[in-house]
Amino acid sequence: MRLAHTMIRVKDLEESYAFYCDFLGLKKVRETPIGDEAVLAFLTDDEERYHIELTYNRDGRDYTLGDQFGHLAFYADDLEAVVAEVERRGWWYRRSRPELKSKYIFVKDPSGYDIEILQAPR
Amino acid sequence: MRLAHTMIRVKDLEESYAFYCDFLGLKKVRETPIGDEAVLAFLTDDEERYHIELTYNRDGRDYTLGDQFGHLAFYADDLEAVVAEVERRGWWYRRSRPELKSKYIFVKDPSGYDIEILQAPR
Repeated sequence: MRLAHTMIRVKDLEESYAFYCDFLGLKKVRETPIGDEAVLAFLTDDEERYHIELTYNRDGRDYTLGDQFGHLAFYADDLEAVVAEVERRGWWYRRSRPELKSKYIFVKDPSGYDIEILQAPR
Repeated sequence: MRLAHTMIRVKDLEESYAFYCDFLGLKKVRETPIGDEAVLAFLTDDEERYHIELTYNRDGRDYTLGDQFGHLAFYADDLEAVVAEVERRGWWYRRSRPELKSKYIFVKDPSGYDIEILQAPR
């Protein structure tokens, strides 16, 4: 089989677009309203091989995030530029331990999901 | 940025390999022990563009799955062959409504995550 997408339920659609598109730089390739009840949005990168599906339910329901699901991860060409932007925005973040070869940070998306941003191999 | 991976915490590593590798047909490209405490495994498909990371913690901890995270989705070349295999195994599954153009089923992985299997475009 082939990997297709990861779906996450989000609490606010505009804040999610601001995070995933404006901050992370993904592009929205499809936005499908389900009547007046919900919106499904598909986000991807320049390669368009995999998608992040956002489900936004308009009924204002609350969710339990739990502690089982892990995170979504993304490669940045210049991690330090991302760190500078995160600091400019005043967001919480956590850095990889300095002794690790892999360099990354963790931030939170607007719905509370853990997001890993990795330095892409140079 | 570029999509990298989705990480999920799993309750049983061997059952997870049986599901993701033997049943779904993914391949394990990396398995990294973290001391005696945990194992990180990276799974992918033939394209190797995106990965599913499994985190298995050996301390037997319990998790709360919650109702916010959505699902992981995969494309099958022959969805009906997958349905036949799911029925042979006696697993629960839910089919897409017949009036929908998109054909898919939902099953559960061994940790309780919702898994969507879509008929790939022919």
